[in-house]
Amino acid sequence: MNELTISLKSGNKMPLYEQIYAYIKEEIRKGTLKSGEKLPSTRALCRHLEVSRSTVELAYEQLLSEGYIEAQPYRGYFVSQIDGLYQIIQPKTEGKQGEKRDEKKYAYDFTPNGVDLKSFPYNTWRKLSKECLVDDRAELFRLGCPQGEYGLRSAISSYLHQARGVNCAPEQIIVGAGNDYLLMLLCAALGNSHRVAIENPTYRQAYRLFVNLSYEVCTVDMDGKGMRSDGLEKSGADIAFVMPSHHYPLGTVMPIKRRMELLKWAEEAEGRYIIEDDYDSEFRYKGKPIPALQGYDRGDKVIYIGTFSKSIAPAIRMSYMVLPRPVLELYRLRCGFINSTVSKVDQLILQKFIEDGYYERHLNKTRALYRSRHDTLLAVLKELAPDIRISGENAGVHLLLHFRDGRSEAELIRKAAEKGVKVYGLSEYYVDEAKNHIKTGGGSREKNGSKETVILLGYANMNEEKIKEAVTLLGEAWKKTRA
Amino acid sequence: MNELTISLKSGNKMPLYEQIYAYIKEEIRKGTLKSGEKLPSTRALCRHLEVSRSTVELAYEQLLSEGYIEAQPYRGYFVSQIDGLYQIIQPKTEGKQGEKRDEKKYAYDFTPNGVDLKSFPYNTWRKLSKECLVDDRAELFRLGCPQGEYGLRSAISSYLHQARGVNCAPEQIIVGAGNDYLLMLLCAALGNSHRVAIENPTYRQAYRLFVNLSYEVCTVDMDGKGMRSDGLEKSGADIAFVMPSHHYPLGTVMPIKRRMELLKWAEEAEGRYIIEDDYDSEFRYKGKPIPALQGYDRGDKVIYIGTFSKSIAPAIRMSYMVLPRPVLELYRLRCGFINSTVSKVDQLILQKFIEDGYYERHLNKTRALYRSRHDTLLAVLKELAPDIRISGENAGVHLLLHFRDGRSEAELIRKAAEKGVKVYGLSEYYVDEAKNHIKTGGGSREKNGSKETVILLGYANMNEEKIKEAVTLLGEAWKKTRA
Repeated sequence: MNELTISLKSGNKMPLYEQIYAYIKEEIRKGTLKSGEKLPSTRALCRHLEVSRSTVELAYEQLLSEGYIEAQPYRGYFVSQIDGLYQIIQPKTEGKQGEKRDEKKYAYDFTPNGVDLKSFPYNTWRKLSKECLVDDRAELFRLGCPQGEYGLRSAISSYLHQARGVNCAPEQIIVGAGNDYLLMLLCAALGNSHRVAIENPTYRQAYRLFVNLSYEVCTVDMDGKGMRSDGLEKSGADIAFVMPSHHYPLGTVMPIKRRMELLKWAEEAEGRYIIEDDYDSEFRYKGKPIPALQGYDRGDKVIYIGTFSKSIAPAIRMSYMVLPRPVLELYRLRCGFINSTVSKVDQLILQKFIEDGYYERHLNKTRALYRSRHDTLLAVLKELAPDIRISGENAGVHLLLHFRDGRSEAELIRKAAEKGVKVYGLSEYYVDEAKNHIKTGGGSREKNGSKETVILLGYANMNEEKIKEAVTLLGEAWKKTRA
Repeated sequence: MNELTISLKSGNKMPLYEQIYAYIKEEIRKGTLKSGEKLPSTRALCRHLEVSRSTVELAYEQLLSEGYIEAQPYRGYFVSQIDGLYQIIQPKTEGKQGEKRDEKKYAYDFTPNGVDLKSFPYNTWRKLSKECLVDDRAELFRLGCPQGEYGLRSAISSYLHQARGVNCAPEQIIVGAGNDYLLMLLCAALGNSHRVAIENPTYRQAYRLFVNLSYEVCTVDMDGKGMRSDGLEKSGADIAFVMPSHHYPLGTVMPIKRRMELLKWAEEAEGRYIIEDDYDSEFRYKGKPIPALQGYDRGDKVIYIGTFSKSIAPAIRMSYMVLPRPVLELYRLRCGFINSTVSKVDQLILQKFIEDGYYERHLNKTRALYRSRHDTLLAVLKELAPDIRISGENAGVHLLLHFRDGRSEAELIRKAAEKGVKVYGLSEYYVDEAKNHIKTGGGSREKNGSKETVILLGYANMNEEKIKEAVTLLGEAWKKTRA
């Protein structure tokens, strides 16, 4: 080939050299220009197209860098030998709708995962955000410490000591974008050749994560005090995942005796650890919050995980993990190079939020708000259905209703849905027990194992008025069937 | 025991009930109150302490919930049987200094990982940040889509199509807090029973991550065109990790022929994938950016990863991954429940930043800035040491100097350091080849395997003046030795 007739558009947004480049590339793709074929010299082509020689040279250089053509000394430019050049096919998009699942709209939703966003200290957050982004703070956009900024970790460490009885130095804290991420990071630090014991029911998100991170997972019997330590001993697990201060979803508080048994189990063998997920212990309506298990740990055995998603706002995406020294060493060795997942600006905002006392005030405010909703819900429930047993009502943002009249969970949920009220069944928190379940001999198994039907009602995201309306509807929904 | 003498302080910040609770708990911990011992009745204690009965009841309830005491019907309260109650020991803190490694201060640092933060569009970012945080946007603090917000993904999808030739729908994009996180997520989706082929030298961060995520990793020979496809074939790997548009640290561009060979390799067996790390292809100084490999992928084989850390600011912590359909399905199945690691506010800011054209302008500005530094560095280097071969100079933010005079890397680095200039050796990008290295028979091995010594100079974070000064110092540092 000696001539390439390209219709160049000088008014085009695309520079001339790029038009030449694009034309030739397309010809090669279509196969019109075949491999081994000689291209016109830059001198010939620039004369033919009436453009400057450097324009053609630029086009050829681009084709050279991408490997479409090759230069042979003293001979000129040739189309490269390329197999399997495909036409690019524009992929079909599912559209925004394609992603969303159809969700029935409910007038009332008792989700146990709700958070009241109206109480989110929007103005404070905005103010702090502005303060952080004052002039010449470009430093904030430089890469920070992989564990999170020291200032924030100090603030978290003090808070944890005061409010949760956790004993740790800022060096032991890793700040990360959410609990899921922290568990993934922990897996990278510990390796995944471990057997994890979990309770059943449990926080399914953690369960699925353990399974997907290729851990061996087994469920261990629990009683009214939490995970049974004899079951844990029998399980062969080397990691126990528990929520001692407020079990999710049952609301169980693990008493000090059981805690000591768990710590003893961990101390009996090297490499045994307890992961304490302290996800919402801030909210307790009777007395003080229950202190964390970590505070009793003398043997460097407890990995403590907490989050601001529950106590401030889900989209904050900031959680923290306190590592005992041996795990901290593993983390530094194997994950120390992994960059932080939280932006420095957000870390600074949160640090100020804690240090300036806003966090404590926000917690107090939210606690009062949730307490009032909690009290309302309890009162109307007791009025409407004094015979239903209620549990898990001293803490957190949901409670459990125990039915023993033989009606199934599905039926209760369906009847409520017909009235526009969404309620949740306990069964969805149970993990498949078929494999790897560690049964303990005698002892008091939790009643949930028996013929009871248990429904969860979360109240964080519903005001008193709505709670009253919704419970009235529930009364209608559930009473009729009984008749 | 029938009496507990507690010195209550009414002016104390701690409520009375909490003082009683704390006192009894401490007595149990110290062993002064022994297990099985009976506590005074609430009636007796309140009279003795001259407080209200409910105060004592509250204290007892807290002790009950934490399991320190037990209530026996008609008998009263007893200290529980608890083994191994420890004194809490406040851990020693390493202090802020303890964490930091001693780092020598250099007057000039040619780090290849630099980013010019002075060009960070601080005011725009702040303005957008303010705009996003206007009133009643509490919605922003609700948990978002695990893959990232749809709006941001649409903006990224358009940008990638225009600027990088990537073909994808927003549904295929996962936004995450940094490349490290995205690789961890990918591992959770694909499972870790894979063999990953990497180039050598390579981006060590990715290598270490693959190793720590328990992948089998092997290095494959590379030549001037990137990873050798015959080596890849021989390696037994099912995942190839490559940087086709701009290899780090060598700066190699993978020509179209090699790209097609890699795609062909992937298509030859089910489950084979190519991870394309397109980390800084925005910066190219000769012609247009090299299009992404993903754009040629017709067989759903390329997992594309890109980041805003390099092009905007490291602390932005936002990267994205484009998944081919089969991997997207695995992701949804195994990781769809994992919450997003990026805050919605940041996502919205970035979306506006792209949509309103700020990103393009910022890229143009940065490209011009880096180009000018690049040109200055090249000019002074050629003047000072015309005999040193330079490579990798057409793109990215660093170039490579090749020495063939027998001096070692350590010597060159040390001599530069003595003049206050920090330079980097290529050897630190090499992975240990002892195990799992796939050698290819003949062919042109890259010269880096031979007796050359290669030094990297990054120029992103150094202005023209400093570059000139530093190169003059390097000239002195490196010339004297030669005499």
